[in-house]
Amino acid sequence: MSAGGACPRCLRRTWLLSAVAGHLERAHRRADRLLEALALDDGALLALSGPAAGATLADAYHRFDPGAARQAALGCGLGLICRHDERYPAGLEELAAPPAVLHVKAPTGALAAALDAPAVAIVGSRQPSDYGRDVAHALARGLGAAGITVISGLAHGIDAKAHAGALAGGGPTVGVLAGGADVAYPARQLSLYRRVAGSGGAVSEMPTGFRAFRWCFLARNRLVAGLARAVVVVEATASSGSLLTARLARELGRPVGAVPGRVTASQAVGPHALLRGGAHLVTCAQDVLELVCPPTGAHGAAEPPGPPDLDPHLRRLLDAISNGRDTPELLAGGGPGDSPGAVMAGLGELELRGLIRRTLNGSYTVVPA
Amino acid sequence: MSAGGACPRCLRRTWLLSAVAGHLERAHRRADRLLEALALDDGALLALSGPAAGATLADAYHRFDPGAARQAALGCGLGLICRHDERYPAGLEELAAPPAVLHVKAPTGALAAALDAPAVAIVGSRQPSDYGRDVAHALARGLGAAGITVISGLAHGIDAKAHAGALAGGGPTVGVLAGGADVAYPARQLSLYRRVAGSGGAVSEMPTGFRAFRWCFLARNRLVAGLARAVVVVEATASSGSLLTARLARELGRPVGAVPGRVTASQAVGPHALLRGGAHLVTCAQDVLELVCPPTGAHGAAEPPGPPDLDPHLRRLLDAISNGRDTPELLAGGGPGDSPGAVMAGLGELELRGLIRRTLNGSYTVVPA
Repeated sequence: MSAGGACPRCLRRTWLLSAVAGHLERAHRRADRLLEALALDDGALLALSGPAAGATLADAYHRFDPGAARQAALGCGLGLICRHDERYPAGLEELAAPPAVLHVKAPTGALAAALDAPAVAIVGSRQPSDYGRDVAHALARGLGAAGITVISGLAHGIDAKAHAGALAGGGPTVGVLAGGADVAYPARQLSLYRRVAGSGGAVSEMPTGFRAFRWCFLARNRLVAGLARAVVVVEATASSGSLLTARLARELGRPVGAVPGRVTASQAVGPHALLRGGAHLVTCAQDVLELVCPPTGAHGAAEPPGPPDLDPHLRRLLDAISNGRDTPELLAGGGPGDSPGAVMAGLGELELRGLIRRTLNGSYTVVPA
Repeated sequence: MSAGGACPRCLRRTWLLSAVAGHLERAHRRADRLLEALALDDGALLALSGPAAGATLADAYHRFDPGAARQAALGCGLGLICRHDERYPAGLEELAAPPAVLHVKAPTGALAAALDAPAVAIVGSRQPSDYGRDVAHALARGLGAAGITVISGLAHGIDAKAHAGALAGGGPTVGVLAGGADVAYPARQLSLYRRVAGSGGAVSEMPTGFRAFRWCFLARNRLVAGLARAVVVVEATASSGSLLTARLARELGRPVGAVPGRVTASQAVGPHALLRGGAHLVTCAQDVLELVCPPTGAHGAAEPPGPPDLDPHLRRLLDAISNGRDTPELLAGGGPGDSPGAVMAGLGELELRGLIRRTLNGSYTVVPA
């Protein structure tokens, strides 16, 4: 991808955003104020930090060197796509504050190809339950297998599982970063970052090498909403940033899906609030496909995956586990075919077929379809 | 309650239903055909079983002795309320096939008092998960404490937990039986049956001593829908009879609520289908109150219960359990204050305060608010 596609004005805007980042962090961390600030023109953004700091800033603004910014990006292997580039994603144009430049770490043409397919964002908590992790992975894997692009934020938790699931399903995935597109953040996610950058790409509106402030994560969420044709929230507490992504998607007229959970789980509060507000209830990848593809569309299977073909003993075992009888002790003695030996053999077969997995505490859990 | 309130015609209709019960079992077990049959007039019902059996039946029909039926009810301590009795519940009149006679096992006036309050049906699976049981109990207890009547079917599982929760909350509860109102069915539910019969009452449309056929459980569900102002389904598989209760309630214009669960649980399939169809998402008793009481109403608290007042260590522990880190082993080592000793002390305090409970497999689960 050529780095030449960003015009001086857009590069300067990108620099300006990084230059006022500290001020935004102090004064504009609330989502609504932040989104307003991001929509300001350069002059108003310059004026935000007051007359004294503003004068120094204005001086630097006028001395900004776009060539150096381009060189920095090139040196880090980033491609640049500004708003005046024909490759600029159409979905971002619909935002109230479209990013000036998209910095892209990806194989040539990979981002365009990924965004040519219907793209779905799967987002959620950075501290999900095992249930949330499993569902995020299964949804993304199913979408990936259907050729749908999965977009997420490369964060720990649901985001990471969404990217990994998409890759496992063989589909493209795009990671939208809060900091520079060349910076693997969080650092523990380095290996996943590399795989995403080798797939649909890691992208950011912030300049090369930029370390994210907290507001950048909210700002990033609008890019996720803009790039995706639909947003699915898997787990989220009441204060999760992924609820902002969902709200922005709804404001853009994109369908929002939410995965229900137990009413006793704090991570289900966000999805349940979305469902109350009219979000689509999502239980499997097929549900998501229907949000972005017409039922007669070319993508994916028309039918939801039926229950796997199992003999009655295994079916009963799987059913019991799905409803919380999830240890060998609880499962044994449930019926005539439920001797400890038969239960262990059944658990082994279900695990081999990928229908259940063992959790850290020794119980079993159903792997979402 | 006087047994004199049932007219001969209504008593004869009740008898007729029991006389054709075997035929209905063979030919009308599907809900839609059954509901059609129940709406037939006596002549059409008599004709159902064919000319040969019909003649014998017609003979018995004409020789029917209402006095004996009254005596049988009286002898079992049942009160009788027929459609021509002013005490007949108004909600039942809205059914396509209102029961001819309501047989009532209850203290004098208790049923009328129970149905004077807003009444909510809480129904669901006979084989729920521990989660479903806990939620059913908590919802019913909260409603009971708010003076709302809880109606259910006295079955195992969700029904039993709904009745028990209502009683624990100090509210009236009404059990609608598929067989005779004097027959505790299922037998293992005898003690609960007695408590319900001592509360709002055990009621049935079938005659004294009648043992339920399978169709009677579907027929019973229409009474539950008719008596309640709203129906909440807690857990249900795709084929659960409680989905019929919900459908009938919706057809009557009553609000339907559903409790979400994990998408991997077969018992969540029913509620999720209802939520997709527009049912209200229910997470706590307050959600249900809002279905039946205007926000300014006299019943119950206006605010949902806030999170309990906990110190940060306990709050973190409760949160971790709610999201599946549910054993002492998984909880210990999560942070500086999470030594095994601190975790055990915290678990003890949370359990004492009724916020968590230990399950059969040694893990902990959050008790719904």
